[in-house]
Amino acid sequence: MATAAEKGIVRETRTSVRVRYPETDRMGVVYHAHYLVWFELGRTELMRGLGATYGKLEDELGIAFPVISAGARYRSPARYDELLTVHTRLVEVGRARVRFEYRILRDEDERLLVEGFTEHATVGPGGRPTRMPENLRRKLEAGEACR
Amino acid sequence: MATAAEKGIVRETRTSVRVRYPETDRMGVVYHAHYLVWFELGRTELMRGLGATYGKLEDELGIAFPVISAGARYRSPARYDELLTVHTRLVEVGRARVRFEYRILRDEDERLLVEGFTEHATVGPGGRPTRMPENLRRKLEAGEACR
Amino acid sequence: MATAAEKGIVRETRTSVRVRYPETDRMGVVYHAHYLVWFELGRTELMRGLGATYGKLEDELGIAFPVISAGARYRSPARYDELLTVHTRLVEVGRARVRFEYRILRDEDERLLVEGFTEHATVGPGGRPTRMPENLRRKLEAGEACR
Amino acid sequence: MATAAEKGIVRETRTSVRVRYPETDRMGVVYHAHYLVWFELGRTELMRGLGATYGKLEDELGIAFPVISAGARYRSPARYDELLTVHTRLVEVGRARVRFEYRILRDEDERLLVEGFTEHATVGPGGRPTRMPENLRRKLEAGEACR
Repeated sequence: MATAAEKGIVRETRTSVRVRYPETDRMGVVYHAHYLVWFELGRTELMRGLGATYGKLEDELGIAFPVISAGARYRSPARYDELLTVHTRLVEVGRARVRFEYRILRDEDERLLVEGFTEHATVGPGGRPTRMPENLRRKLEAGEACR
Repeated sequence: MATAAEKGIVRETRTSVRVRYPETDRMGVVYHAHYLVWFELGRTELMRGLGATYGKLEDELGIAFPVISAGARYRSPARYDELLTVHTRLVEVGRARVRFEYRILRDEDERLLVEGFTEHATVGPGGRPTRMPENLRRKLEAGEACR
Repeated sequence: MATAAEKGIVRETRTSVRVRYPETDRMGVVYHAHYLVWFELGRTELMRGLGATYGKLEDELGIAFPVISAGARYRSPARYDELLTVHTRLVEVGRARVRFEYRILRDEDERLLVEGFTEHATVGPGGRPTRMPENLRRKLEAGEACR
Repeated sequence: MATAAEKGIVRETRTSVRVRYPETDRMGVVYHAHYLVWFELGRTELMRGLGATYGKLEDELGIAFPVISAGARYRSPARYDELLTVHTRLVEVGRARVRFEYRILRDEDERLLVEGFTEHATVGPGGRPTRMPENLRRKLEAGEACR
């Protein structure tokens, strides 16, 4: 099957975030766990752009994408009130699993601050592992990027 | 009806909390919203002590106590790694409403850091306002303190 | 001195917020402490609009506005992914104290969800109470609303 | 040089955590970013046990251990009010780098919920990379576990 790259589809979603006061810690920089929250904002907007609003998936289909694995490399710290951009790519869409990759850059100097990924299982009502519905899978594949 | 004070019941629950790193902000002190979370730890332990474990109320009876009003006065800041004690009192138990009051002190010097309150409605399954079940109300009244 | 109302200045700042997943709790609605964070976003944007960027006040003048009192009334819950607007007014500017008031409404149905206030001391370098610099006070007074 | 295992030192610190209400999300389970906070509680207690109180390192020596890399595998969800234990091991102590590994288990059934790691740089005053002071390094090496 043709990969996303072969099909010429290399989609990346950009999401703006401004650092909030309580996201900083006494070191004066953003506490490392908050980047995982920003990763989530990124994938939510990517999915919304593909016509797959995450809240509706949960509410209407009972489909959820719990995180089964996550990682981040912290290269440079973000500070209070800075504007950042989360670059999100959907790099794998499997039958019951998806993987997103993220890069967070500071707008002012385009410096790369953090890189990371999340992997998600697909679960259905009751939290049971389930295959992704076909039409959802097609929507996501349309947004799949090459690595 | 005799008040808690007249009945000689003036109960206060003490709950220990150690300040976590991400609860501090770049000012070097605890961000003000986190005290509301510690208030919750206080009332949860007070209720547990009365035999009314909050999680079980929600899971088994479908009874929840959403916050309808909250307030706090911040007198002195808490800092990273300090040990604090949340003093919690249940000061009103109505048919469909309860009120808790809190004082948070630093263990090292017994300094009063924050005072506050929360008021809660009683809601049943589906989030609808409901009267508190009688046996729950009796448990709570047993722990009601005078103002 | 003429009040803001007499001068015809009744300024209100509107700030958009979208509910994030971790801001919800197991009751399915926004946890009450997070509204205090959104209040902060509101006053930060109000101050930015008056030419008093909060981060710069701290970094360049050593002036901070720690919260000394806060309160909120919760009328209706916000849910995941909803778009909300924080309406912020600066209702008092004293020599060493300011007070903001907030209303948070859901965009979709313009329903009032939460009302609240915060009061702040003015502190200088080292966290000592200080008078507000005159030019800062003038900027803020320009944005003061009548109650 | 003899490894910790060869020296017969395999230290693991156990830290108790009870799940707080705002740590749950609308899926009814703990939001994945909070486990990183519990990892921090684990390493803080491990270091305290070795006589290296983290807050004092920052305040007295200007030494900080910012996270440069973190990862977690989520095996089973934690729920509200559950008691968990964070098992923390210090697996590498380099000249300017340390690595901790974590496992979080639920007390009730000893089920493994999450495994993860964090890697930290050593920075000195001003956030500049620095070698770890020798006496600090010796304290940490005393608690180093084999992998």
